[in-house]
Amino acid sequence: MSFEANEYFDGNVKSIAFQSETLPATVGVMEVGEYTFGTSAYEYMTVVSGSLTVRLVDTTEWKTYKAGETFEVEANSSFDVKVVVQTAYLCLYKS
Amino acid sequence: MSFEANEYFDGNVKSIAFQSETLPATVGVMEVGEYTFGTSAYEYMTVVSGSLTVRLVDTTEWKTYKAGETFEVEANSSFDVKVVVQTAYLCLYKS
Repeated sequence: MSFEANEYFDGNVKSIAFQSETLPATVGVMEVGEYTFGTSAYEYMTVVSGSLTVRLVDTTEWKTYKAGETFEVEANSSFDVKVVVQTAYLCLYKS
Repeated sequence: MSFEANEYFDGNVKSIAFQSETLPATVGVMEVGEYTFGTSAYEYMTVVSGSLTVRLVDTTEWKTYKAGETFEVEANSSFDVKVVVQTAYLCLYKS
């Protein structure tokens, strides 16, 4: 058994997939920068270390989430993220 | 820039290294099983998802840490871990 690792944005975002007690999940890290992520499943994103400043699609407000804080994103949607320190996250996928 | 991923125990433990706001760090996942880890730096291990049942070297007591809980391990030491669900962790290294 080996966990699957994936890279996005030229390696600036890297994650490892696993099965949490409840839902499929990834843990990953983001380099300093700005990214737009698309979702297929409904996502629960929790900041593990650092912080993420997030704007959900169809909204204008940016909101910053720190370690231990969670935001949710609809399926088949997208969100913009600004990262100012290397940041680790946990993402749970609700199908 | 690309984050470095490492595998241990035949891929049953996989981690990604990054620089937290304070200390060098990794996020990673562990497959169900039992492992013994050696430390070089002093480590702050936080369970992100799942749980870890841990016995520090020179102790007989096993203690279980759940998501959000942290244990500390001396440098140049070791600890045993039992994992009963796939578990994600954050490790900070104090040099």
